Amino acid sequence: AIRYLSKRRQERIRFVGDLLRQEDFDLVLLQEVWSERDYSDLKVKLGACYPFSHYFRSGVIGSGLCVFSRFPILDTLLYQYSLNGYPYMLQHGDWFCGKSVGLVIIKISGIIFNIYVTHLHAEYCREKDAYLPHRLVQAWELAQFIRHTSKAADVVLLGGDLNMHPEDVGIRLLRGWTGLQDAFAEAAHFEGCEDGCTLVPNNCFTDKSELLPFPLGIRIDYILYKAISSFMIKCEELKTTTGAAPGMDVPFSDHEAVMATLHIQRQGQAAGATLATGEPMLADVVTEARTEVGVGLQAAQQQRYSSGRMALLALLLLLLQAMAALGVLAGLDAGQPFPKLSFCLLAFLAIGILLLATGLHLFHTMEVKMLHSTEEQMRMVLQMLQEHP
Amino acid sequence: AIRYLSKRRQERIRFVGDLLRQEDFDLVLLQEVWSERDYSDLKVKLGACYPFSHYFRSGVIGSGLCVFSRFPILDTLLYQYSLNGYPYMLQHGDWFCGKSVGLVIIKISGIIFNIYVTHLHAEYCREKDAYLPHRLVQAWELAQFIRHTSKAADVVLLGGDLNMHPEDVGIRLLRGWTGLQDAFAEAAHFEGCEDGCTLVPNNCFTDKSELLPFPLGIRIDYILYKAISSFMIKCEELKTTTGAAPGMDVPFSDHEAVMATLHIQRQGQAAGATLATGEPMLADVVTEARTEVGVGLQAAQQQRYSSGRMALLALLLLLLQAMAALGVLAGLDAGQPFPKLSFCLLAFLAIGILLLATGLHLFHTMEVKMLHSTEEQMRMVLQMLQEHP
Repeated sequence: AIRYLSKRRQERIRFVGDLLRQEDFDLVLLQEVWSERDYSDLKVKLGACYPFSHYFRSGVIGSGLCVFSRFPILDTLLYQYSLNGYPYMLQHGDWFCGKSVGLVIIKISGIIFNIYVTHLHAEYCREKDAYLPHRLVQAWELAQFIRHTSKAADVVLLGGDLNMHPEDVGIRLLRGWTGLQDAFAEAAHFEGCEDGCTLVPNNCFTDKSELLPFPLGIRIDYILYKAISSFMIKCEELKTTTGAAPGMDVPFSDHEAVMATLHIQRQGQAAGATLATGEPMLADVVTEARTEVGVGLQAAQQQRYSSGRMALLALLLLLLQAMAALGVLAGLDAGQPFPKLSFCLLAFLAIGILLLATGLHLFHTMEVKMLHSTEEQMRMVLQMLQEHP
Repeated sequence: AIRYLSKRRQERIRFVGDLLRQEDFDLVLLQEVWSERDYSDLKVKLGACYPFSHYFRSGVIGSGLCVFSRFPILDTLLYQYSLNGYPYMLQHGDWFCGKSVGLVIIKISGIIFNIYVTHLHAEYCREKDAYLPHRLVQAWELAQFIRHTSKAADVVLLGGDLNMHPEDVGIRLLRGWTGLQDAFAEAAHFEGCEDGCTLVPNNCFTDKSELLPFPLGIRIDYILYKAISSFMIKCEELKTTTGAAPGMDVPFSDHEAVMATLHIQRQGQAAGATLATGEPMLADVVTEARTEVGVGLQAAQQQRYSSGRMALLALLLLLLQAMAALGVLAGLDAGQPFPKLSFCLLAFLAIGILLLATGLHLFHTMEVKMLHSTEEQMRMVLQMLQEHP
């Protein structure tokens, strides 16, 4: 729902509001509500059924994340991912959203729920996914954020657009390192798009060419959960929307919504295990992710080097021009003077390149730092897994 | 310790290493170790007494934060503050450091320690502190980060350069909202600079004019702590360095180091209270902080508006020039043609202003978002404090 750009935005936001009011969920996690005005409209409309809500502000545009709840929101926290694409990739606006994970804490019947909502960097080209290292850093930071902030929670829920297929390394890393389970895989009963897909070709807002290799569509929106301490959680039913509702000629969104009915029960004895997958398997996943982050690190180092060299060349050109200008002023240059206009144009060009290349160099320096840091954290975890299997 | 800029840097890093080796602490939290090479040198030197360490990478330059420990580091997490000065304030390099709070988790005799190290935005002019709203947002985010990540910890320790005097609103907010206690105020025995000051006038690296109103110096570096669940913590002794050590002609740093001996004891019964100050007082502090953040919000909105207007004017000028150029090309302009050189210079100037003003506008939009978001969080907390006193 991008203002001025998205087609029939206000109408669809109205439809979403109608659906939410009609279904009367306990909890709603929305992504890509880019306009705060849309959030305010929803808030007014949903005030009666969802008296509690929170909008997470971030970046230039906003994180797009918001939560509506039937139960009081006790506390919130936002964590902005350290890497999120490139500001100069204007056609891929991800950088401007300041993509983040939002946490809200609620309590239902004495059970503490840590609820996370997030939206990871989009995948624009699956064959040559330049953003894979960034998305992996995000998946890692998401897992770390959940692990560190959920220690007092009874139940952890994560919902959002993860922009990863179920078998992708990022989601295996996230699930393995947090112990979260996939509601779709665990659901006792499922109803909706085949294979639980949430980006399907017959939605009029999806890019058909991207989905050619996936005739059924892809599943990139998830509800993940785990119960810690002495609770048991299972997914009784999972549903997705299937395009437009009856009487509507346009689907709610380019993604299908995921809706889960969860059953949570107090257990006699405390469950000890928090990691769902076996740790030897986890080590493989972390190794795989670390390799991909390493590839991204090399690319970022190369870009840092190229932009630094470009800035130096521009500086050199400027210095040469300054010397030439000084030479003319001092009357040392006996030959034909350089045409003024071209001289000025060249100087401006050099200044422009110097500024741009310096900016790029700084940006890629930060990128290298964060990729390096993630790679090292993964190395630490691998070492730990090997030492204490 | 800034490479190429700080005086006698390597020598002083060597002195710091010697002191740390000689004192044989359990835990060392360092700030402003800007160069990763300095960290590596320290790591090699201290390997025998502090076998575990972590360096937090962030921003363009780095967070400057690192930890050396005698006990294994079980886990780490970095949270980068959402506001940290302005990239165009090159003389105040704060923005380039990506200031952050680092968390390391260690376990000593079965007691889980959450240890936080941080360095907040510097105060360059106390009378007219333009960075106060940013520092308050940082203090708030620091408090929120500690609250959300320390729920499973037995003991919480925070050490760092907070750039706030003990009575400043930011430190009252931090202490009130986390329940952290000030080791200096609690210490049974103190030794060091008068009043526990850590930035003192007779240190040769400090700016004497800044310290004129404070003849003894100021206390801006802290060790704060609290014990949760069933532990009791007290500060047996607090010490600061006092300039150069015997035999040295130069102090270790521009700040004096703070060293605490803490006594931690298991208690029979669980202590319930986590907030140190009474909540009515806390409400006052949050209100005061919120007012300051509101002042910052207004300034940021003003700057966002000015830069947006400037960008529009530059765009208008460019459009006018384009029209004039087209007019000349079409032979419509019968009068004296505008001199080519001035025309080009003007166009470049307009492009330059357009780019700069657009960048500024985007930056201040983000600033407004984060100030607004913090203000709203504070409002939520105030409401909560009033409803459940």
